[in-house]
Amino acid sequence: QLLEPPEPSFPPPPPPSAPVSDWNTPQTEGGDWNNDAWNSHGSESWDQEPPHAPDYTNHNNAGGVNNQGFRGGGMQQQASEEGWDDDWDDENEDNSSNSTTNTSQDQLPGSGNFGLSAPKREKKQMTQNSDFSKYGTVKKSFNRFSTFAKTGGDAFLMGTVSANVSESDLIKIIDTQDGPAWNYPSQPYTCAIKSPKKESKLKGLKSYIAYQLTPSFSNIQVSRRYKHFDWLHERLEAKFTCIPIPPLPDKALSGRYEDDFVSERMRQLQLWVDRMVRHPVISQSEVFNHFLTCTDEKKWKAGKRKAEKDEYQGGKFFLTLQTPPTSLDMRDVEKRMEIFCRFVKGMDDNMRNMLQIGHDSRKKHTGPYKREFQKIGGSFKQLAETFNLDSAAHSQNLTAAIDYTGDTYNEIGDMYEKQPREDLDYMLEVLFEYKGMLSTYPDVLKLHEGAIGKAKECERLKDEGRMPESDVAAVIQRADVISFGTLAEMNHFQRERVADYKDMMQKFLHGQIKFYRDITQKLESALQKYENA
Amino acid sequence: QLLEPPEPSFPPPPPPSAPVSDWNTPQTEGGDWNNDAWNSHGSESWDQEPPHAPDYTNHNNAGGVNNQGFRGGGMQQQASEEGWDDDWDDENEDNSSNSTTNTSQDQLPGSGNFGLSAPKREKKQMTQNSDFSKYGTVKKSFNRFSTFAKTGGDAFLMGTVSANVSESDLIKIIDTQDGPAWNYPSQPYTCAIKSPKKESKLKGLKSYIAYQLTPSFSNIQVSRRYKHFDWLHERLEAKFTCIPIPPLPDKALSGRYEDDFVSERMRQLQLWVDRMVRHPVISQSEVFNHFLTCTDEKKWKAGKRKAEKDEYQGGKFFLTLQTPPTSLDMRDVEKRMEIFCRFVKGMDDNMRNMLQIGHDSRKKHTGPYKREFQKIGGSFKQLAETFNLDSAAHSQNLTAAIDYTGDTYNEIGDMYEKQPREDLDYMLEVLFEYKGMLSTYPDVLKLHEGAIGKAKECERLKDEGRMPESDVAAVIQRADVISFGTLAEMNHFQRERVADYKDMMQKFLHGQIKFYRDITQKLESALQKYENA
Repeated sequence: QLLEPPEPSFPPPPPPSAPVSDWNTPQTEGGDWNNDAWNSHGSESWDQEPPHAPDYTNHNNAGGVNNQGFRGGGMQQQASEEGWDDDWDDENEDNSSNSTTNTSQDQLPGSGNFGLSAPKREKKQMTQNSDFSKYGTVKKSFNRFSTFAKTGGDAFLMGTVSANVSESDLIKIIDTQDGPAWNYPSQPYTCAIKSPKKESKLKGLKSYIAYQLTPSFSNIQVSRRYKHFDWLHERLEAKFTCIPIPPLPDKALSGRYEDDFVSERMRQLQLWVDRMVRHPVISQSEVFNHFLTCTDEKKWKAGKRKAEKDEYQGGKFFLTLQTPPTSLDMRDVEKRMEIFCRFVKGMDDNMRNMLQIGHDSRKKHTGPYKREFQKIGGSFKQLAETFNLDSAAHSQNLTAAIDYTGDTYNEIGDMYEKQPREDLDYMLEVLFEYKGMLSTYPDVLKLHEGAIGKAKECERLKDEGRMPESDVAAVIQRADVISFGTLAEMNHFQRERVADYKDMMQKFLHGQIKFYRDITQKLESALQKYENA
Repeated sequence: QLLEPPEPSFPPPPPPSAPVSDWNTPQTEGGDWNNDAWNSHGSESWDQEPPHAPDYTNHNNAGGVNNQGFRGGGMQQQASEEGWDDDWDDENEDNSSNSTTNTSQDQLPGSGNFGLSAPKREKKQMTQNSDFSKYGTVKKSFNRFSTFAKTGGDAFLMGTVSANVSESDLIKIIDTQDGPAWNYPSQPYTCAIKSPKKESKLKGLKSYIAYQLTPSFSNIQVSRRYKHFDWLHERLEAKFTCIPIPPLPDKALSGRYEDDFVSERMRQLQLWVDRMVRHPVISQSEVFNHFLTCTDEKKWKAGKRKAEKDEYQGGKFFLTLQTPPTSLDMRDVEKRMEIFCRFVKGMDDNMRNMLQIGHDSRKKHTGPYKREFQKIGGSFKQLAETFNLDSAAHSQNLTAAIDYTGDTYNEIGDMYEKQPREDLDYMLEVLFEYKGMLSTYPDVLKLHEGAIGKAKECERLKDEGRMPESDVAAVIQRADVISFGTLAEMNHFQRERVADYKDMMQKFLHGQIKFYRDITQKLESALQKYENA
């Protein structure tokens, strides 16, 4: 019994409108795009078309494979209305364990699929890798490619949609020495999540946890449930086409009301909100603002409906981008994208590898390392016990010193057991968060690849005299907009990445240094005991 | 082909002389004496006799089991003369690998037999426990009980031998607050072993290593071969009945001329000589002095012959002990012996346990610990390699810092590999030396136990009116002499033990402290790299 059922919440597909309808372009020469790790989504529809055979007919559905994650199909508007009460009111969350069952392959190190093989809600793996699962699993509930196409990506690129975007809706991209970047807000803010409360409805038949969110700019507390986060997450994915949205922590199957779970879940939601609040585009968006501030049920419904009908989501999001006046060199952009693609793939591998090593290391600390020191400690204690049979005065001090040394090694063993909480666990958390974020990037990169491929196709048509030069120039200019957005987001990702990994490494090393310094001090005080022995 | 054949070197057995001839007394009530670890030698002949059935008939051979280690039997005097040339001159040592083959069970941790099951020369175990075998194996070439009986132990106790021991041959035992103790020489000395040289005879057909020994009191260098140490060792065991003589390093089977082996062997011989030189009785003895000083071949032969004919060896050694005027309480002595027996057994167990743990720990340092740190180091290096794909200036410092951190963890892995040489190995050496020494103690304790048992038997005979009171008092007084000697040696053992283990623990902890301090410093310099990242 699915308790938070997928809420179909897409606007209806745009009417057929343009001769170029789909992203069925041949692969670019961009190196790594076509390997296994990147093939799970979308590429089939691209690959199935013969190269150099542009398809001017319109078909909105971009191929069966892209439909996997699409929930609701043509009924979404209606379902969204119907889903409302279901959303704000309640179903019994305790029965949610029978939700869609997908194996979360992306949890297994080395599978290299970026989580793309499991587009629907993933079941938390409780049987293996249980140490990983405390961080939740990657949520893949959304097929971006499909949405992008359906919501007018092709129409945007081919120039068949236009809009007078109001000043307040414009999102500014600026040139920096590191390339295009979002214009960072002058007044960043924060949002604290606190006081999780178990609440119930229908005379206790239905219960859930409500978290209290307080944004720093308003200082007014709002109450939100996991399902509201889930709704927000889907909205963000639908709207911000070139922005990978980090997955939410996974939904729990059992123990969801236990204190440990609730506080851990809250901490993970805090991490997610922190990242969204730091994002220069998302943090300023209407939908996010609505989520952070709305306290009135009626207004919530209205805002929710408005967000779901947002004119500038999906493909049309690019209409709102205000790019620098410069134009981009398409080959240069492709080169940058190729490098970034290698970066994302490499970093994804790094994350899996480091998570595995860290996970093993944590086990070793609580098991073999601890035991090894306690074996040594125990042997010193036993030796002292034997030496204690010699009652001569000159022997007693040595015996006591050796006994103390035994205690010292036992305590060092305990220190090893506790140490992962002091350094490793924070590192694992960051690694896991990035593994989740990286898993959402290939979709964004594929969209951009599709746009570039389409633009190049148009150039070829121009060369063959089959498309007017001015039309092609406009297509390329609009492809630039998509590139600008994608590059600005890459820039943001790298900024965050540098800050996060600097912080992570510093915290880890601080913890390690304190650990070895504490061991040293313990051993020094053991050594002192021998001075009078 | 045995190249250094056992040299039968006992004086002929004393003539039948006394009504009480053998140590076939029932077990004392002293607790642990009769368990497996202590039963390998002698106990059979004691146990086979029914309790309370003293045997007044004389039989010199104290039972078949005690004959195991007896080499040469009645022919010893003659063999000693014949063996002379063989000893000073040469056999081809390279052929010595076919010597008596006994498995050295005492090398295996936990066998708990104190090495007593292998009384003859032991073959070095090359196939397993090879890390232990570098310290050599325990040499058990001598059956003390048999020798003691044959050389007049019973005669001494029963008062059928007496001698006017000259002042210079007297060995003084004094009373201290920790009980009877040897009178320590006012001028201790040292003896350095240096410059091992490969020498050969018979036009190179026979070769051996000669070590150069220089005692501090003479500063005159003497040249000695392993076989000379072996001869000395046997003499010391024969003479100093209540003093356990530490085993020599084991004879090598192969690679005996390789530099590493030669210097390691020399170091072990140095440890052995150090311990002998520190011994208040051995260091002052004529035979040891002969070994340390004789440079003339003729004089060597004469001194050797004299030592082998020593009037005061075996049982008669006790004639030379000058004890304090006090008499001992036999029950109190038994109590002390029982505790010391538990001490020796416990410490033997400790040594085996600690050797095992230390051996495992050494392996872990060079294997899994090193690999673990290098896995972590490698993962940081790989992460840096990925991050290096981002050429933005603000990213480069972090990338370099992470790369440096990777190097740091790799280096820490190398430190783990090298560390055992800095702390563990010295500890293992001490543990191993003591394991060898402890393996020689049960024989000494059994002799004492036999003497006490015999004295108690005489008391019982007195109570039954079967032995005159004055005779019994004399037996008890002579049993006291044996107790004084044994207690004085126990006192010496404990002094050495306290000094050795204090030194061992301090060295070990110093090494450990330096190790963890070095790790801390390495991590601190890695952390510094993030300051400008």
